[in-house]
Amino acid sequence: MTNFEVPEIDALPEDIQERIEKETEDAGFTPNVFRAMAYKPSHFWSFFDYHDALVEDSALEREEIEMIVVTVSGANDCLYCVVAHGALCRVYAEDPQLADQLATNHRAADLGPNHRAMLDFAVKLTNSPGSVTREDLLVLRNNGFSEEAIWDIASVVAFYNLSNRLAIVADMRPNEEFYSIGRE
Amino acid sequence: MTNFEVPEIDALPEDIQERIEKETEDAGFTPNVFRAMAYKPSHFWSFFDYHDALVEDSALEREEIEMIVVTVSGANDCLYCVVAHGALCRVYAEDPQLADQLATNHRAADLGPNHRAMLDFAVKLTNSPGSVTREDLLVLRNNGFSEEAIWDIASVVAFYNLSNRLAIVADMRPNEEFYSIGRE
Amino acid sequence: MTNFEVPEIDALPEDIQERIEKETEDAGFTPNVFRAMAYKPSHFWSFFDYHDALVEDSALEREEIEMIVVTVSGANDCLYCVVAHGALCRVYAEDPQLADQLATNHRAADLGPNHRAMLDFAVKLTNSPGSVTREDLLVLRNNGFSEEAIWDIASVVAFYNLSNRLAIVADMRPNEEFYSIGRE
Amino acid sequence: MTNFEVPEIDALPEDIQERIEKETEDAGFTPNVFRAMAYKPSHFWSFFDYHDALVEDSALEREEIEMIVVTVSGANDCLYCVVAHGALCRVYAEDPQLADQLATNHRAADLGPNHRAMLDFAVKLTNSPGSVTREDLLVLRNNGFSEEAIWDIASVVAFYNLSNRLAIVADMRPNEEFYSIGRE
Amino acid sequence: MTNFEVPEIDALPEDIQERIEKETEDAGFTPNVFRAMAYKPSHFWSFFDYHDALVEDSALEREEIEMIVVTVSGANDCLYCVVAHGALCRVYAEDPQLADQLATNHRAADLGPNHRAMLDFAVKLTNSPGSVTREDLLVLRNNGFSEEAIWDIASVVAFYNLSNRLAIVADMRPNEEFYSIGRE
Amino acid sequence: MTNFEVPEIDALPEDIQERIEKETEDAGFTPNVFRAMAYKPSHFWSFFDYHDALVEDSALEREEIEMIVVTVSGANDCLYCVVAHGALCRVYAEDPQLADQLATNHRAADLGPNHRAMLDFAVKLTNSPGSVTREDLLVLRNNGFSEEAIWDIASVVAFYNLSNRLAIVADMRPNEEFYSIGRE
Repeated sequence: MTNFEVPEIDALPEDIQERIEKETEDAGFTPNVFRAMAYKPSHFWSFFDYHDALVEDSALEREEIEMIVVTVSGANDCLYCVVAHGALCRVYAEDPQLADQLATNHRAADLGPNHRAMLDFAVKLTNSPGSVTREDLLVLRNNGFSEEAIWDIASVVAFYNLSNRLAIVADMRPNEEFYSIGRE
Repeated sequence: MTNFEVPEIDALPEDIQERIEKETEDAGFTPNVFRAMAYKPSHFWSFFDYHDALVEDSALEREEIEMIVVTVSGANDCLYCVVAHGALCRVYAEDPQLADQLATNHRAADLGPNHRAMLDFAVKLTNSPGSVTREDLLVLRNNGFSEEAIWDIASVVAFYNLSNRLAIVADMRPNEEFYSIGRE
Repeated sequence: MTNFEVPEIDALPEDIQERIEKETEDAGFTPNVFRAMAYKPSHFWSFFDYHDALVEDSALEREEIEMIVVTVSGANDCLYCVVAHGALCRVYAEDPQLADQLATNHRAADLGPNHRAMLDFAVKLTNSPGSVTREDLLVLRNNGFSEEAIWDIASVVAFYNLSNRLAIVADMRPNEEFYSIGRE
Repeated sequence: MTNFEVPEIDALPEDIQERIEKETEDAGFTPNVFRAMAYKPSHFWSFFDYHDALVEDSALEREEIEMIVVTVSGANDCLYCVVAHGALCRVYAEDPQLADQLATNHRAADLGPNHRAMLDFAVKLTNSPGSVTREDLLVLRNNGFSEEAIWDIASVVAFYNLSNRLAIVADMRPNEEFYSIGRE
Repeated sequence: MTNFEVPEIDALPEDIQERIEKETEDAGFTPNVFRAMAYKPSHFWSFFDYHDALVEDSALEREEIEMIVVTVSGANDCLYCVVAHGALCRVYAEDPQLADQLATNHRAADLGPNHRAMLDFAVKLTNSPGSVTREDLLVLRNNGFSEEAIWDIASVVAFYNLSNRLAIVADMRPNEEFYSIGRE
Repeated sequence: MTNFEVPEIDALPEDIQERIEKETEDAGFTPNVFRAMAYKPSHFWSFFDYHDALVEDSALEREEIEMIVVTVSGANDCLYCVVAHGALCRVYAEDPQLADQLATNHRAADLGPNHRAMLDFAVKLTNSPGSVTREDLLVLRNNGFSEEAIWDIASVVAFYNLSNRLAIVADMRPNEEFYSIGRE
């Protein structure tokens, strides 16, 4: 499941066991990222606390967050995140096709102009961060995003530029279930 | 100092005020990243908790961590991180020239073969994450890095791929002090 | 469905109508590429005759052909071909996950060394044709591919470098059905 | 002449022999692409039928077609197509310098604004197909190209993205004659 | 100090010895580039005569020349030129921070719009010379640069694209002194 | 002929007039680079003195120098240098086809392994100077090039990275004669 050896679940610290149980109940299976990140408990909590802050304290809709995640993960060629968040994107956007469109080419997706601007920004910040300037933030403002929403877009892009790299190095494998969730 | 408006320090949550005070005492000035990240308190703690875990629970020497940070930040053209962590790199490596070498071109730095391999990996994972494979991890193993050290290298690379993007979007400015610390 | 206006099916030349009927019977729906290519009947037949030659007179298994198509189309960010041939790949390889793996990153797919070499070659020939040399063909020979099989691999890569560009310019939309075929 | 072994001409299928004879009469020598493509007769006809459709049923002038071919082949670093179609470009455009200009850098060629737009599009569709959008087609419309002409431009670009890759893999060598035709 | 063996100073031609003495007096140490270029005396003079012409006969301020040099050398990852001309940039611009900003990312430096345009041009001409057109010169004109100043900007960019490549191949090492000059 | 206004020949400094007369006698026409570089007399002499040193004091054959120039200029998309030095390459190598091969793709040219290594190095030093290391020089040594020859290869590559950029910015036009010299 990963390039790094993870102990059995019942050998993990209790607070990690509890989080994994909760996720397993919610999803009906244990998403592999929770097992993989348990390789190093201190990093486990840093990773998921950041993730939780991004989805719980946000000026963005959850469906927008997942749209960004799938687009960034497609740009970075990260299998785990494309497939796992592809499932979340289908569920939150209630759209069985959007995730495949975004993972392949957000320019070919059926998007309004503000979401197109949001994802153009996500791809630019992913592919050539050094070329991003204040002008790019202005384009987002002109597409109706608040200052806080821009911060949140940038934070989600940034976090999945972290997450994609960890998932690739660990060679995390998407659970079978993620491939089909939300396609009906 | 940044593209996002941050409240005055005494209007910030108390725990953030305390952390900022502590950093200010340690450094003799308030590194701008602490003010900038206070834009959104929930993200402040996610960011610094992850940072703290990476430096406190690591199979790497602190000087190795800072070498990776400067190299990655140079590859991503991030001014704040090159200058601020350039100072830390000079201090921890006790070398006034190493940071400028790594920020410009790690291939031109005075490195042994294992640190050269470590930074080749850091640049590859930064510039083309999708091309990283198990063979790249083997090169690190053959250069003497343990499984845990490889995880830690990947985690530092990943975190500064997050951090560089936030600093660029926020247009964080390095404090004047960072430019000269550790150069004597 | 496309950026170019296509006449109603019953206004198309009879031989094209017949082909479209046959495809519709086979698939249970009319794949949009057949409508889109009817924009110019002379090109319609050139396109599909070439396609037919590639799948009917080949040293490759059909499943190998579809693996190449999905990988090339992923590298070229072509939505129509990723989704439509993703369905064919799932059906011919009898594997519900392979297409998503290849479209995202063939290095993360579950492949034996010969298929890995085949797709490494496909990506190199797609992304930087001018850097391909006789040495690359030797790698394929050393992975067990015959001279004819190498010609066929190159021809499939070449044809989908044509096909991807036409589909993108026409903005061909994948039929809804393709997204879910072969996922069970 | 090529990386793939081609039978003697009189061992080839009769229809292929006839086509080769006709080409030889027209040119005064046998262009190597006809021998090379005879490696696999079914592909021979697919390839040349598509080629013939593109030049015989087109809203473009033949000289415009050859301008696109040389520009695309230069971008893809394909020796056979740059040299062979360079000759055709000199002949059809009645300009001994245009082909070398386009093969090196179409921006340095002596072009009117509509041909400049046509070739900007050709290079973009060649180098980064996934970034082409409807806006790019609008630029062509605003430069006077009809819907059909845009389809034909895209089709020529697409076909030579196929052709360049086959010629490179086969290592097709341009006939000596092509280097000097049309230079006087 | 370099990949090429240089004779002792007193074995060098007299005119080169004199130039080296003069430079040593001016700087208080012998900048390594003078020793390194003495590998081949005919090239030594070609190199420094060109350099001298660029700084002595120029429509640009010396501080602008050094800003261009540092920016180009940062784009080309050339350690010697970033560090040695970083020192000159700090001295001539009387700014202890500008060089580190330009070497990392000129977009993050504190610049007026004309210097920003000058350095945007320098980076474009360095990274993708073939895409530079007359329109790029017009942008400089509209930012107040004279025809001669534009020639001079281009010449400095061009010369350091030479210089960076020689310094990298020779593996020239910046003198220790350069790292700290002008930082106070 | 160029983007910069050059005075009439008889208004130029006498030494420049003499050089231009000499070149005109040698070639039978005035190569445009001599007129174009006369825009700024001090730069004229720097440029041609460096050029002269490179061809007069070299461990390389003149034909090897011109092979490097054409290859580098092709990689940089520089029309003037590809066409003018293409003529010189045909003349010095006594080969009517070599220049077109090198300008398009040196990997498709008919070269022995040492010239292939020489041009691989030239392209790498042109396209990504920062990735060149001592290992690349070793490959040249192992292909029979002396230390001085390696310096000379690097110097020619470096000088034409200067020259190409000046010619592109000036929009220098190749003289009609260059297109056909040496093709018989």
